[in-house]
Amino acid sequence: KRVALVLAGCGVFDGSEIHEASAALVHLSRGGAEVKIFAPNIEQRDVVDHLKGSPTGEKRNVLVESARLARGNIQDLAELKVSEFNAVIFPGGFGVAKNLCSWAVDGKNCTINEHVNSTLQAFHSAKKPIGLCCISPVLAAKVFPGCEVTVGQDKNVDGRFPDAETASAIAELGCKHVCKDVSESHVDKANKIVTTCAFMCKAPLHEIFDGIGTMIEEVLKLA
Amino acid sequence: KRVALVLAGCGVFDGSEIHEASAALVHLSRGGAEVKIFAPNIEQRDVVDHLKGSPTGEKRNVLVESARLARGNIQDLAELKVSEFNAVIFPGGFGVAKNLCSWAVDGKNCTINEHVNSTLQAFHSAKKPIGLCCISPVLAAKVFPGCEVTVGQDKNVDGRFPDAETASAIAELGCKHVCKDVSESHVDKANKIVTTCAFMCKAPLHEIFDGIGTMIEEVLKLA
Repeated sequence: KRVALVLAGCGVFDGSEIHEASAALVHLSRGGAEVKIFAPNIEQRDVVDHLKGSPTGEKRNVLVESARLARGNIQDLAELKVSEFNAVIFPGGFGVAKNLCSWAVDGKNCTINEHVNSTLQAFHSAKKPIGLCCISPVLAAKVFPGCEVTVGQDKNVDGRFPDAETASAIAELGCKHVCKDVSESHVDKANKIVTTCAFMCKAPLHEIFDGIGTMIEEVLKLA
Repeated sequence: KRVALVLAGCGVFDGSEIHEASAALVHLSRGGAEVKIFAPNIEQRDVVDHLKGSPTGEKRNVLVESARLARGNIQDLAELKVSEFNAVIFPGGFGVAKNLCSWAVDGKNCTINEHVNSTLQAFHSAKKPIGLCCISPVLAAKVFPGCEVTVGQDKNVDGRFPDAETASAIAELGCKHVCKDVSESHVDKANKIVTTCAFMCKAPLHEIFDGIGTMIEEVLKLA
């Protein structure tokens, strides 16, 4: 099965969450999928010094930085042909909320990058599955009102879900938020949207890895 | 068990190989290890545009870029106290050969970063295991003449080992190169050095992930 994976940079605070992207690629490899990686050819919203946690004022390009995760084997998202793929995957990270849409600034009133929007619309129209993790489910919630997604829990249970209010914003968009733990995915069968919370939950890395594995497995089943 | 993991930047061509570092962290998490991440606080030898494969002329800092892989939770390698750890892991990537030592330029005549050298010496003296993958085994070969390591095969078998000549350079340093496939590790019991070839082999990502898993497992056994 041929799967497109869409990145948003390289690093949790201004790009794709590295371990989520890598986990998705490991599970896709094990599932025998043929993967191509894409990212929009745009400037990052910001560049964050990941040591200090503050913006640096530098300029970096989302496609060029995403190429680090892709080991150079990556294409401009504008060139993605949906007819060539059976499914699409969006790992998470703040870069999704900063570069693929404006959720980090505008919340539920965000705008979506035009190529991200057209990619999502095209896979959905073709009834091909869409897998998203961490904060990426907000892309589906914004583009497909009425869909079902999870970003983990809607309350900060045991301090493990510090961004639980994201679930309310999803509900306000007219979507159904389904509470799931880090080891689980939710499958919206009608829309063929598969989501898992990943780093939205404070969990050991291998649990996040395994949760992403369930998301990839469900996507490949639907593909 | 407490394990230190040493990074060299973030991206295969000028830093740590991202998927190797992430795989090591997933396996350490599953093995119940308590991990702290370190990198030297030095300028990168170069910054490579991973889309084009060519240097950009930018300046970036190894510790700051490594913080992307560490999600901000990282310390200067100069602060590593060997007494606080049971083992140390070095993922691979060109950054090891550019920033942790000068192998990329000088081959077997390379110099080793002082903090990398003192870290390796201290773990070795304390008989604590050292795990290395991909190109990182050259660090052990340079610092511990006579040790046994693998970087995969010493011939480019089926085109899967394009950098097979690294094995000869290791032999010229007075070390024993042991041929292993990507799914395997070599354990030098006398020196407590565990190595696996990872991306030195052209293999599907999940096989590289699993090979790194065997390396981590052996390190944790020895720790």
